[in-house]
Amino acid sequence: MRAGIEAGGTKFVCAVGTGPQEVHATTTFPTTTPQETLGRAAAFLHEQQAALAPIEAIGIASFGPLDLDVGSPTFGSITSTPKPGWAGADLVGWLRSEFDVPVGIDTDVNGAALAEHRWGATAGLDTTAYLTIGTGIGGGATIDGRPLHGLLHPEMGHIPVRRHADDDFAGSCPFHGDCLEGLASGPAIEGRFGRSPKALGPAHARAVDVEAYYLAQLVATVTYVLSPQRITLGGGVLGLAGLIEAVRERTVEWVGGFLRTPAVTDDISGYIVAPSLGDRSGVLGGLLLAEQALSRNMAPT
Amino acid sequence: MRAGIEAGGTKFVCAVGTGPQEVHATTTFPTTTPQETLGRAAAFLHEQQAALAPIEAIGIASFGPLDLDVGSPTFGSITSTPKPGWAGADLVGWLRSEFDVPVGIDTDVNGAALAEHRWGATAGLDTTAYLTIGTGIGGGATIDGRPLHGLLHPEMGHIPVRRHADDDFAGSCPFHGDCLEGLASGPAIEGRFGRSPKALGPAHARAVDVEAYYLAQLVATVTYVLSPQRITLGGGVLGLAGLIEAVRERTVEWVGGFLRTPAVTDDISGYIVAPSLGDRSGVLGGLLLAEQALSRNMAPT
Repeated sequence: MRAGIEAGGTKFVCAVGTGPQEVHATTTFPTTTPQETLGRAAAFLHEQQAALAPIEAIGIASFGPLDLDVGSPTFGSITSTPKPGWAGADLVGWLRSEFDVPVGIDTDVNGAALAEHRWGATAGLDTTAYLTIGTGIGGGATIDGRPLHGLLHPEMGHIPVRRHADDDFAGSCPFHGDCLEGLASGPAIEGRFGRSPKALGPAHARAVDVEAYYLAQLVATVTYVLSPQRITLGGGVLGLAGLIEAVRERTVEWVGGFLRTPAVTDDISGYIVAPSLGDRSGVLGGLLLAEQALSRNMAPT
Repeated sequence: MRAGIEAGGTKFVCAVGTGPQEVHATTTFPTTTPQETLGRAAAFLHEQQAALAPIEAIGIASFGPLDLDVGSPTFGSITSTPKPGWAGADLVGWLRSEFDVPVGIDTDVNGAALAEHRWGATAGLDTTAYLTIGTGIGGGATIDGRPLHGLLHPEMGHIPVRRHADDDFAGSCPFHGDCLEGLASGPAIEGRFGRSPKALGPAHARAVDVEAYYLAQLVATVTYVLSPQRITLGGGVLGLAGLIEAVRERTVEWVGGFLRTPAVTDDISGYIVAPSLGDRSGVLGGLLLAEQALSRNMAPT
């Protein structure tokens, strides 16, 4: 049996199983201190192991930035988060000391991108992107079925963007102020309009207009830099009624006259899609990262 | 013997050989009409073939956007360029009809990225980007030694960017006005300052300041979206004295406080580098595309 953990900045989701059709048990709890939160994750996995079957591998799809350099002494740790107590938290080391099994790790969004590529909205495609707009903004990608890495991992939420002409909100990113995340995350919406995206109600035209202006820049930028065949757009902020449609329209304005490909000009609603796996793509990505850790471990050396 | 063609918007470069140490002959001429320009390329290749050895394959690294979808009826053509006469030009079809050999094609910047990865500044790295700032702005990338494709190919020059506070130049991009290319290409510099980048002289502090502001946004965006291990920055505009140093400084401002990786914080001049192959990376990329076309052709089916 394998275990997946979605380590989010707001909540943790844990599951044991192998895929969307076979999740034996799952649990969700708020992210508090590393000790308490990782302790709850471990307790859940110990329980499931006792009740069901031994856990053979664990995969973590985590908020970041993360150190994913296998040769680094801090591999598997969170690096520069502003989240109190979590900078330097050694997720992989801690889980390995608690469970003597292979542990895989990647960003929450690379995990979600993997899961949507295996079972969801981007199945069968060579180049895919997964963007999520919530407490933070993140983006992951798969190239030929593998998560995108390099210097580090994508951190698409922090790109510079052009300001909406009628927006003077200072921005909420503790690192950059008014980068994309600072202007378009859930906390940015709350800071600008005084209410959470959920509380804005179904017809807040100005919120949709401002938000779509920023998110279409993200989609256009990802299109120009990465050229994915399809972009999945998820996260709580997409609950704002009419937002995905407005992002599609604005994206065509940015991109359509130049990239005259039918995917953009004729079928934008097939290019920018909602996640098929709903809010389970992160934890299912964790199960996939466990699967990969297990197969790496079993490969002949 | 293999042939490489760099099809640029301003000039064509053709070469026969196998790599930087073995170029048998090369020629350069201005890009005029497709008929005349492709005719000159073909005449050069016929001559070399007669003098040296049969040409076994041709690779084209071309300006775009290009149709690179092998299944498409217009595969190997230029699509939506504003360059008179070139929209729809069928580069691969024309060369195949003139020389009955395998023809490979990719963007000029993916070609250059490939060449720098094989022989140059980014050799041995898993994830690389090549950016060029000249008449246009383009970006290519390699992932595990293969050029990045998806929906189409990267078109990194057309990302939206934030305006410099002291810049009211309208922008020169025929599609977007003031996208990155519209604000920071060679023609944009000439439009804004009334002189070409070369004629600005060695100490035009304002040009360096404005240009670095825009190019650092490109480098930061590519870092956040693609996470390359190294970025090669080439093209005529980089001839502006002090520009690459200014781009490095500005990039650290955008990225450094957040991505606390030594590659950015301690060694930015090893992260943002000049091309090792100078202005030959495009045509050498053409030779690599010829090599790939040949090996695809010889692979058992």
